[in-house]
Amino acid sequence: MPERQVLRVGVAGLGTVGAATVDLIRRKGELLASRTGHRIEVTAVSARDRSRDRGCDLSGCRWHEDARELVADDTVDLVVELIGGSDGIALDVCRSALAAGKPLVTANKALLAHHGLEMAALAEEKGVHLGFEAAVAGGIPIVKSLREGLAANGIDKVQGILNGTCNYILSAMRESGRDFQEVLDEAQALGYAEADPSFDVDGIDAAHKLALLASLAYGGQPHFEAIHIEGIRHVSALDISFADELGYRIKLLGIARMTADGLEQRLHPCMVPKDAPIAQVEGVLNAVEVTGDDVDAVMHEGRGAGGGPTASAVVADIVDIARGVRLPVFGVPAERLADHPVAPMSKHRGCYYIRLMVLDRPGVLADVAAVLRDHDISIEALIQRGRNPGQQVPIVFTSHEAGEAAMVGALEAIGRLEAVIETPRMIRIELT
Amino acid sequence: MPERQVLRVGVAGLGTVGAATVDLIRRKGELLASRTGHRIEVTAVSARDRSRDRGCDLSGCRWHEDARELVADDTVDLVVELIGGSDGIALDVCRSALAAGKPLVTANKALLAHHGLEMAALAEEKGVHLGFEAAVAGGIPIVKSLREGLAANGIDKVQGILNGTCNYILSAMRESGRDFQEVLDEAQALGYAEADPSFDVDGIDAAHKLALLASLAYGGQPHFEAIHIEGIRHVSALDISFADELGYRIKLLGIARMTADGLEQRLHPCMVPKDAPIAQVEGVLNAVEVTGDDVDAVMHEGRGAGGGPTASAVVADIVDIARGVRLPVFGVPAERLADHPVAPMSKHRGCYYIRLMVLDRPGVLADVAAVLRDHDISIEALIQRGRNPGQQVPIVFTSHEAGEAAMVGALEAIGRLEAVIETPRMIRIELT
Repeated sequence: MPERQVLRVGVAGLGTVGAATVDLIRRKGELLASRTGHRIEVTAVSARDRSRDRGCDLSGCRWHEDARELVADDTVDLVVELIGGSDGIALDVCRSALAAGKPLVTANKALLAHHGLEMAALAEEKGVHLGFEAAVAGGIPIVKSLREGLAANGIDKVQGILNGTCNYILSAMRESGRDFQEVLDEAQALGYAEADPSFDVDGIDAAHKLALLASLAYGGQPHFEAIHIEGIRHVSALDISFADELGYRIKLLGIARMTADGLEQRLHPCMVPKDAPIAQVEGVLNAVEVTGDDVDAVMHEGRGAGGGPTASAVVADIVDIARGVRLPVFGVPAERLADHPVAPMSKHRGCYYIRLMVLDRPGVLADVAAVLRDHDISIEALIQRGRNPGQQVPIVFTSHEAGEAAMVGALEAIGRLEAVIETPRMIRIELT
Repeated sequence: MPERQVLRVGVAGLGTVGAATVDLIRRKGELLASRTGHRIEVTAVSARDRSRDRGCDLSGCRWHEDARELVADDTVDLVVELIGGSDGIALDVCRSALAAGKPLVTANKALLAHHGLEMAALAEEKGVHLGFEAAVAGGIPIVKSLREGLAANGIDKVQGILNGTCNYILSAMRESGRDFQEVLDEAQALGYAEADPSFDVDGIDAAHKLALLASLAYGGQPHFEAIHIEGIRHVSALDISFADELGYRIKLLGIARMTADGLEQRLHPCMVPKDAPIAQVEGVLNAVEVTGDDVDAVMHEGRGAGGGPTASAVVADIVDIARGVRLPVFGVPAERLADHPVAPMSKHRGCYYIRLMVLDRPGVLADVAAVLRDHDISIEALIQRGRNPGQQVPIVFTSHEAGEAAMVGALEAIGRLEAVIETPRMIRIELT
C-alpha cells in the first residue's frame, strides 16, 4: 500500500451538523482512506462554548474560540464552515479560507445565495475547490447531479421540495385535516420546526437553496433577490381538502425555468397532480426533480436535514477534495456565469386554483364569471357546494392557462365584489 | 476567453445510443464547451453498415468498418464503446483503448459485469478514466452518486428497478389484470420489449447492472456469477391481485446487501409495500434506492433506457474526462477491490408470500400448517377464499421472517401433498 497522505480538516461550528461531521470522520477513517487514498483527520474545531457536551469525540483537536483563528491554523488544510448566516463570522471564515488557498466545504446556503459569485471567483482564482453539496437538500447529492451527472443536458426545469419543515407541515395538515397553526405548534413541540419558524415557513430557507440550484442548472450567477417567494402560512385545511377533490396535492416548490422573458425563479405553494412523483414525497423528506432536454425527468429524494444526512454531504465534498477533484463551483467558471435577465412574476403563465368565500345569493357566480371573462381567463373546473342562502360558502375554480398579471387583476376585481367577503385565495397549479 | 483544447471522440457502435450520442455532442457544442472549457468533437465513428441512415449528422467523421481501427485512429483521444456484448469486438475495443492509454466511456453492463476487474486495473495502470454511468439505469446518475455523492456512507443496502421492460410489463399487468404472456406480446408490438425478450424478462440485463452497483457500494470486484437471478415469467395476474389485496406491489428488484455470511446479491420479483417510494415507480422508469448508514435512504428515479437518456449519461462521463476528473473505476483502486465472500441464497432470511392451488376439501389447510410448523415457519396472514368443494382454489399466505432454506424445504413438502395440484408459487417480501 503506498504511503498515505493526510488531509487535515478544521471544522468551524459545532452545532448538530458540525458535531455529526466530526463524528462521521472519526468513525470512518478506514472507509474514507480506502475511497480516497488519504487519511482524513479532524485537527481543529471552533465553537464559542467549550463546556457544552456535543456528543462527539474532540480529543486531540485544537480548539479555537474564534473561527477566524481556525482558518489561520497551520494544522488545517481544509476548512469546513458550519457556522451559518449569510454574513458576519461565516463570511469572514469562507473569505479568509479561500484567500489563504485552503479548500472550503460549507453547508451555508444563505451565504452562497448572497455571496456565491464572490466565493466562486475567489476559489477559482486560488485554484481550490469550494464544495457545497450540504447546502442544498441535505444528504441528496443534487449539486453533483446537476454540475456533473446531468451536465450533458440543457435544463428545461428544476423543481424541488427544499424545506422539510414545510413539507412535514403540509403532509400533516393533509393527513389530519387540521389547520396550519395547529400543525405548526405540534411541529415545534416535536422539534421539527424552530421556535422562530419564519425562515422555514415563509420560504426564505428554500429560496436560498433554489438560488443555488438555478445557478447550477443555468450557468448563472446566484440571484436570490430575483426569486418570487411565498410561504405556506396562507395554505388552509379547506384548500388542502379542495385540492384532494380536484386530484392535486399542495407542495411548497422551488422552481427554476428559463423563459423567453429571462430566468424564472419562484418559490410558492403549488398544486401538483396526485400521481406526479413529487406529490408522493411526504413528511420531512426533500426531493429535487431535474428535467433535462435529453435525459427527461430525473427525481432525487431523501433526507434534507439532520446531522447524519448533512454530514454525509459535507464529507462527500471532503472526499472529492481528497481525490483531487477541482471543478468550477457552479459548473462553469465564475467569470463566465451569466447575469440572466429576470423573468418578472407578472409574465408567468400557468393554471390557477382560486377559492372565494362569498355570501350565498343569486348572481354571485355571474359576477365572478364576468370579471374572469373581462380578464381573458377561462374556467377549467368549478365547485360550488353546500348551498346556504344568505350565509358564507366557498366557490372554488381552476383556470386554464392564464397570465399572472391578468389573474392578479381579476382577483383584485373579484375581491371588490360586494358578495365576496374574504381576500380571494390563489394557489398556482404546476402540471409538469 | 482562454484558447480551448479540443477533445476528439471516437464512437464505436451506431445503434440507437451511438447515434444519439453523436447527435447530442454535435448539437451541444457551446453548452459542453462552457461546462468543460473544451471543444468536444466526434472525429470518428464505426459501424458495419455504412449505407443505413442513422438519423445523425456524420459529416466530417472518419468511418471505420472495424471498431478496432477506430481505437487506433490517431484523431481519436477518447473512445466511446457502444457495441455491446460481454466479449468479442466490444472487449477488444475496450482492452485496446485502455492499453493505448485512451480514456474509455462505455454503456456495456455485460462486459463490465464479467470483465470489470480487468478493465478497472488496466485503466488505473494506464492512468486514464473509465466511465460507465450509462451502463446502469440509463440517464440516472447513480454511478456518480454511489462513487462520489454518497462516498461518506457505509452502504446498508442498494435496491433498484433496473430493467424498464420488466417494470413496464409488471405495471401493465397490474393495471389491466392481464397475464404475463399477453402483456409481453403487446410490449413487443409497441417496441418496449425485444423480439427475444429473455435477456430482459429472465433478469440477466438487470443482474449485470446489479453487479456494478454492488461493486460500487461495497468496494468489491464485480461478481456476476454470485447473483441469485429469477425473472418475471412466473409472476401471474393472480399473484398481482393478491399482492394488491395484501398491501403490496410486485417489482423486479436487484438487491445488494452485506450480511454476516458475506455479500448478498439477488435479483428477483419482490412484494414491496404499496406506500414505499420504490412501489410508486411505474412503467418503463428505473429507480435505485441507496440506504447509507449516515444519509439514510436516497431515491434516484428516471429513464433507464432510450437514446437521449443513455446519451446523457455517456456524455456526462465525457464531460468528467474533459474536466480532468480521474477516479478509481469502482470507487476504490482495482487492486484493493475486495473479493467478498458470497452469501448463499439458502442463508437469506426474509418474509415470504406463498400461493398454493389446492383441491378444496377438508384438512388441506391443516396439512399445510403442519408442514410450516415442522419447518419453523410462522404465518403472518392467510387468505382462503371462494369455497368450491372438490374444485381447485387458491390458498395464499404470508410468513413472518423465515430462513430461505426452511422455506424451500417447506414448499417441497407442501408440493408433495396430494391436494396441492400445482407447484407452489413463492415471492419474497421486501419490507425495507
